[in-house]
Amino acid sequence: MERPGHLEAPELAVSEWFNTPAPLTLKGLRGRVVFLHSFQLLCPGCVSHAIPQVLRVERAFAATDLQIVGLHTVFEHHRAMTPVTLRAFLHEYRLTSPVGVDLADGQSDSPVTMRRYGFRGTPSSAIIGRDGMLLHEAFGVEEDLVLGARLAMALATQAPRSSAPEAAGG
Amino acid sequence: MERPGHLEAPELAVSEWFNTPAPLTLKGLRGRVVFLHSFQLLCPGCVSHAIPQVLRVERAFAATDLQIVGLHTVFEHHRAMTPVTLRAFLHEYRLTSPVGVDLADGQSDSPVTMRRYGFRGTPSSAIIGRDGMLLHEAFGVEEDLVLGARLAMALATQAPRSSAPEAAGG
Amino acid sequence: MERPGHLEAPELAVSEWFNTPAPLTLKGLRGRVVFLHSFQLLCPGCVSHAIPQVLRVERAFAATDLQIVGLHTVFEHHRAMTPVTLRAFLHEYRLTSPVGVDLADGQSDSPVTMRRYGFRGTPSSAIIGRDGMLLHEAFGVEEDLVLGARLAMALATQAPRSSAPEAAGG
Amino acid sequence: MERPGHLEAPELAVSEWFNTPAPLTLKGLRGRVVFLHSFQLLCPGCVSHAIPQVLRVERAFAATDLQIVGLHTVFEHHRAMTPVTLRAFLHEYRLTSPVGVDLADGQSDSPVTMRRYGFRGTPSSAIIGRDGMLLHEAFGVEEDLVLGARLAMALATQAPRSSAPEAAGG
Repeated sequence: MERPGHLEAPELAVSEWFNTPAPLTLKGLRGRVVFLHSFQLLCPGCVSHAIPQVLRVERAFAATDLQIVGLHTVFEHHRAMTPVTLRAFLHEYRLTSPVGVDLADGQSDSPVTMRRYGFRGTPSSAIIGRDGMLLHEAFGVEEDLVLGARLAMALATQAPRSSAPEAAGG
Repeated sequence: MERPGHLEAPELAVSEWFNTPAPLTLKGLRGRVVFLHSFQLLCPGCVSHAIPQVLRVERAFAATDLQIVGLHTVFEHHRAMTPVTLRAFLHEYRLTSPVGVDLADGQSDSPVTMRRYGFRGTPSSAIIGRDGMLLHEAFGVEEDLVLGARLAMALATQAPRSSAPEAAGG
Repeated sequence: MERPGHLEAPELAVSEWFNTPAPLTLKGLRGRVVFLHSFQLLCPGCVSHAIPQVLRVERAFAATDLQIVGLHTVFEHHRAMTPVTLRAFLHEYRLTSPVGVDLADGQSDSPVTMRRYGFRGTPSSAIIGRDGMLLHEAFGVEEDLVLGARLAMALATQAPRSSAPEAAGG
Repeated sequence: MERPGHLEAPELAVSEWFNTPAPLTLKGLRGRVVFLHSFQLLCPGCVSHAIPQVLRVERAFAATDLQIVGLHTVFEHHRAMTPVTLRAFLHEYRLTSPVGVDLADGQSDSPVTMRRYGFRGTPSSAIIGRDGMLLHEAFGVEEDLVLGARLAMALATQAPRSSAPEAAGG
């Protein structure tokens, strides 16, 4: 699944953060590339494929300014996947990059950020450019070779000058 | 880890059962071989290695009278691994053989059955013979070849005649 | 693929042996269980699945009297898979159990033993009981759990007394 | 293992080519990125890790102008790994990108190109930039994420203008 790169990435709506001293926003991350990965802690494909890939991304891009952001997008078994369980999950799986609990607003089984991005299920991911534009979305786990190439290309792109004044005036 | 086969397998102490219409006891299973596997739903080694092996045992021994019994032996992150979460876990991982929640009696972080068997952590497993004796205990995941051989040998052994009167008089 | 267990396993026809001080025959191995595995050194399924399984069988059954016998059944690319290349292959893949080159008699692309057993391709395998009877044949790689169970059951069976005099009189 | 990127990649010395209608030279490939991978057909690490990675690179970068070049660098078991066996190997493993047999000149067990690059063993690889400079060398198999990033970065770099006249005058 690819989306045209001319959409600004929707802002995150998060009810609780882990692994970060302060809440994160895409607006605040402007100027950096963001790898946003959506998962559920009881989703077998997430646990066996997506989370290990995130750990590999953590290591492989440690020397870059890539910002990894996890999103716990619970859309089923809501009572089974609470923040208490998520905290223990992150500890056991040694995921050290920031993870936010996608905001449940009661209007849908799916939480708010998941709806904004149109994620069809878990695992899903998005790559957001330095200028805040949505570069790529994927449902399922992409091949490492392809993901590595996408992240490197996004990191190699400088933020356009037009975004600088906006940041300065923000 | 091997234990002498001259010990009777300790009885199960379970607070809640899943995937079975009625509670199970080793006494009630006398005459059948039991593969008892102990896990925690947030234990990475259990999720990536032990549970997939249990699913393979379910398939490979479906035509035999082997009784598989899972034991959710929570000894850490107690609030994170509740029966509500376990129920969803079993659904998502398609584990259909019986699973009991090892009884927490408040006297230790480790639950009762885990202490009775002396399991050092998760995953652990035990093979119990038709006569109720403990044939083998293992900490970690054994190789499939070895486990297949152990289960086949246990299944091939007939319950000794000496146990028959006991069962008849029970 | 299963065959009735009432057939005597056909004798091996081998042009050259590796990893054994003397040629092997099923007749000479009477009284022992034989795990016969057929492979080609350029067969990807053999190299990635069957040979690693044979190495696991070597380890798992090292304490038993199981006899592992490999058979290099070249039925294609004959000039590419010579005994010289096989010798280096066995060295590099650290296969230390005996391997025979299945006899090419020029009457078919398939060698003699392969035809006798009716192997459809590589990898294939057969389990031969202590009495020399064919217990099981498989095309492809069986699950380790199932193979472990089959080998254990075959090993647990004593050679029938009727075969003893035959051996004595041979 | 990293080498400074200021060395021109040594030219290939090949005695026989497969999967290409005409011999390849780095000089002739100037302007394109080259992924050079060195292997031996009886090297277990090559067969189980490096060759599958090359197949993934073939797929992942099919839409780019990346040139994959394999090099059969036989430095042991010379009689066992002949071009006849290599041809069957490439067929069986479905490697369709060009592969050259590294030239054996009799002055060393190691062939000529392997010596020029200083490869310590197999598998090894090198990435060569559009300007013919050696961007990276690796012994062993790199993680896909890292390799994907390296190849993407190399592909994103335009050949410097200084090389254009040279090409025009060639």
